[in-house]
Amino acid sequence: MSAMADLMAFQRRTEALAQVMGRLQWDQETMMPAAAIDQRGEELAALDGVLHARRTDPRVADWLARAVPANAVEAAQLRLIRKAYDRATQVHADLSAALVRTTALAHGKWVAARAAEDVAAFLPVLDEILSLRRQEAEALARGGELYDALLQDYEPGMTARDLTAMFAALRPRLAALRAAIAGSGRDPAPLVGTFAEAEQLALSEEVARAFGYDFTRGRIDQAVHPFSSGAGADVRITTRVDIADPLGCLYSTIHEVGHAGYEQNIDPAYGLTPVGQGASMGVHESQSRLYENQLARSRAFTGWLYGRMVDRFGPLNIDGPEAFYTAINRVVPGFIRTEADEVHYNLHIALRFDLERALLSDDLMVRDLEAAWNDRFTADFGVAVDRPSNGVLQDVHWSAGLFGYFPTYTLGNVYAGCLHKAMRTDLPDLDHALARGDPSPALAWLRERLQCHGGLRPPRETIEHAAGGPVDPALLLDNLDAKFRAIYGI
Amino acid sequence: MSAMADLMAFQRRTEALAQVMGRLQWDQETMMPAAAIDQRGEELAALDGVLHARRTDPRVADWLARAVPANAVEAAQLRLIRKAYDRATQVHADLSAALVRTTALAHGKWVAARAAEDVAAFLPVLDEILSLRRQEAEALARGGELYDALLQDYEPGMTARDLTAMFAALRPRLAALRAAIAGSGRDPAPLVGTFAEAEQLALSEEVARAFGYDFTRGRIDQAVHPFSSGAGADVRITTRVDIADPLGCLYSTIHEVGHAGYEQNIDPAYGLTPVGQGASMGVHESQSRLYENQLARSRAFTGWLYGRMVDRFGPLNIDGPEAFYTAINRVVPGFIRTEADEVHYNLHIALRFDLERALLSDDLMVRDLEAAWNDRFTADFGVAVDRPSNGVLQDVHWSAGLFGYFPTYTLGNVYAGCLHKAMRTDLPDLDHALARGDPSPALAWLRERLQCHGGLRPPRETIEHAAGGPVDPALLLDNLDAKFRAIYGI
Repeated sequence: MSAMADLMAFQRRTEALAQVMGRLQWDQETMMPAAAIDQRGEELAALDGVLHARRTDPRVADWLARAVPANAVEAAQLRLIRKAYDRATQVHADLSAALVRTTALAHGKWVAARAAEDVAAFLPVLDEILSLRRQEAEALARGGELYDALLQDYEPGMTARDLTAMFAALRPRLAALRAAIAGSGRDPAPLVGTFAEAEQLALSEEVARAFGYDFTRGRIDQAVHPFSSGAGADVRITTRVDIADPLGCLYSTIHEVGHAGYEQNIDPAYGLTPVGQGASMGVHESQSRLYENQLARSRAFTGWLYGRMVDRFGPLNIDGPEAFYTAINRVVPGFIRTEADEVHYNLHIALRFDLERALLSDDLMVRDLEAAWNDRFTADFGVAVDRPSNGVLQDVHWSAGLFGYFPTYTLGNVYAGCLHKAMRTDLPDLDHALARGDPSPALAWLRERLQCHGGLRPPRETIEHAAGGPVDPALLLDNLDAKFRAIYGI
Repeated sequence: MSAMADLMAFQRRTEALAQVMGRLQWDQETMMPAAAIDQRGEELAALDGVLHARRTDPRVADWLARAVPANAVEAAQLRLIRKAYDRATQVHADLSAALVRTTALAHGKWVAARAAEDVAAFLPVLDEILSLRRQEAEALARGGELYDALLQDYEPGMTARDLTAMFAALRPRLAALRAAIAGSGRDPAPLVGTFAEAEQLALSEEVARAFGYDFTRGRIDQAVHPFSSGAGADVRITTRVDIADPLGCLYSTIHEVGHAGYEQNIDPAYGLTPVGQGASMGVHESQSRLYENQLARSRAFTGWLYGRMVDRFGPLNIDGPEAFYTAINRVVPGFIRTEADEVHYNLHIALRFDLERALLSDDLMVRDLEAAWNDRFTADFGVAVDRPSNGVLQDVHWSAGLFGYFPTYTLGNVYAGCLHKAMRTDLPDLDHALARGDPSPALAWLRERLQCHGGLRPPRETIEHAAGGPVDPALLLDNLDAKFRAIYGI
């Protein structure tokens, strides 16, 4: 066989094992008995050792040196394999396994600390994870900024400098919009009531199907922090249920269906290869946020949803589709990022970006993190954090070692703004379909322009190819301005 | 580090990866979306390749040559690691991976063929699996009998000759007992009615707890063919629910709790090592059958169970604990092994043992298997098989390539007979506890005598150590004679 064929055969097995790793993590969050956590840590560390050995296998370097790509897909495969090889060979297997084992155990400690509102209980493990990730970043950065080194795992090609510019473009206009809304004097009524779990799950499943989720290649379970997991023929999602908040369940589901739809719609010919996966976390988030916000929180779609809510739950405290639309899009300076409206959401991310960058550069000590969080939150949101589970302990990410991940949420929003603008130009009648609860024209557009290609192009090129123009935060801001100024009459 | 310490560190990682393999198989039977099966086959094959490479790693031979055991546990570890090494090095990695991939796909084909009552649809895949397993047996047998080579995977030290002798001891007395029961003129009323799924599962969970199942280190799900899976801190079981047959759910659960209890009660110091697992499938089955039959189908326990059934389901069609005891122990020549009474059960196993031995030695062709099964069934059970799902397609085993596994069921029954005899001698008041729904004295006896030791001793020694005497099929037969002659007044 040729070097290209040998390399791809080897890589397919590595990708199959990486899928197994993901499946174990899914199991840990959804199915695993609590006392199995230590053993699971050993299992994950053993599998990580296998993956690390394959990713640093000297034959990979040899194949990479000799492989001749026959087309653009093979060229992309080589680009991605080379990147993974370079990364893996810079990080020692022991460090890699230590991160896997430590973060597996840290999850339970974070859950317990959050439940007990006990920041101090979590700080030692956070310190340990941060130290391990910093070692990793130092190995990868080659003298560059540590934060940039970690970013590459989630958004290849992105830098902290670019992100700083992006947040600088977003914050003034978001702050102005927030201030204008606060000054409008309007406070739309929220949806209140009690909504049976079974009905919430049934409606979520119905909407997941409408948004194209293929249940023959996936399943929905419940998890504390909803996520999507897997690639190819086995892409699973999770959701959460609160009987007082049916919109949480519904929009979490739609968000995860966005992630899963991306993976499910990649050309099956790319299965178990690097190209057969989403281009980056930012591109992934562009899909989940576009499904969730630009499609499912639109006036057209919420009009249809209102009828389905009444069908399932009986009369609501909110009368009519217009009031329902404003209830769904209420702007409230809440503590919790995952529940934030579209105006506040990116302010949450900016806070985390700045704090984790400061942690990584030693400008902020772990022991001072809670105070720094709380001060910043008061400054940005005008409200004081009342307890750690509403503040520094709210997110799972740091316990999982995911420093550098948060900014991809805002990148995803910016990317979604670009895609949405182009989509609306191409599909002038989209609202007619959405008003029937049918997002399929938008899904087909995304599938053809972006999703089917997987990781064929680097992240920014993926977006620019699909949107037919450059990435520009103004497109998101224009859309938010138009939407919320209309809702709040400002 | 010493060779012993190096070997054990390496082995622990291998065992951790073997646990991952088991978890994927659990997932496949309980959670996996249907269309993911091909991808799962690739994942299993990739992981099998990793395991095969580790099990045949030349360093293992080197460590084995140099390791000096410090005690009986280390000596047992070396014995088991050497055995696994010898086995793995005799089977080529490609054959091992082909078996994993073929049997992963065969499962779905068996399910479909069984649902369609279409034997012909299953024969090609059975032929392929048989051919692969025969190649494996030829590599392992070194000129000996092929069947013996496969037996070693499930019951080390056992031979087809020994099994033939065991079945020769069992069949005449079981046939005589069966004939005596048939001639008794008695036919106890069966339990009939409709029993809500949720209540069946709740009762099963209650009884699982009573039988010592630790839910913090396990969970119960539903599967077509109930099984137990995993070791150490993560031992999961499955059950099945038929609203017309609550005893099926209940006794499947107790059976699997027997398997899981064995694994859960092994000394945690042996975690992720060869000694930290059951000694053999036969010893495993001795636990599951003892829990299920000698304990849970006893007059004492069913008396307690009768009350719990009435509490949960209201009045039954059966009046009083004595009639309930006879209903649970009805002797009926049914088609399905897993539903067979204690008198018929081992006749089912004898049939499979003879047929699969004939298949493996080429005395029986796959195309003639159904006719051979049906002829033998009529001869042994006095009833003609009415459809393939009641005959040759009923069991999952052959689709999974498990030739040589079936006899361990009867071995387990024989072993259970020996253990039960010794246990009753040591615990003369056991029935008083069972009559309160409390099997804990028996569980403590099994834990201390057998379960905590895991694979420390070879299978037969494990039983003889626990029972304090030699393995003798007569102990099982005496027990069955006494029990069923009393029930049927013969």
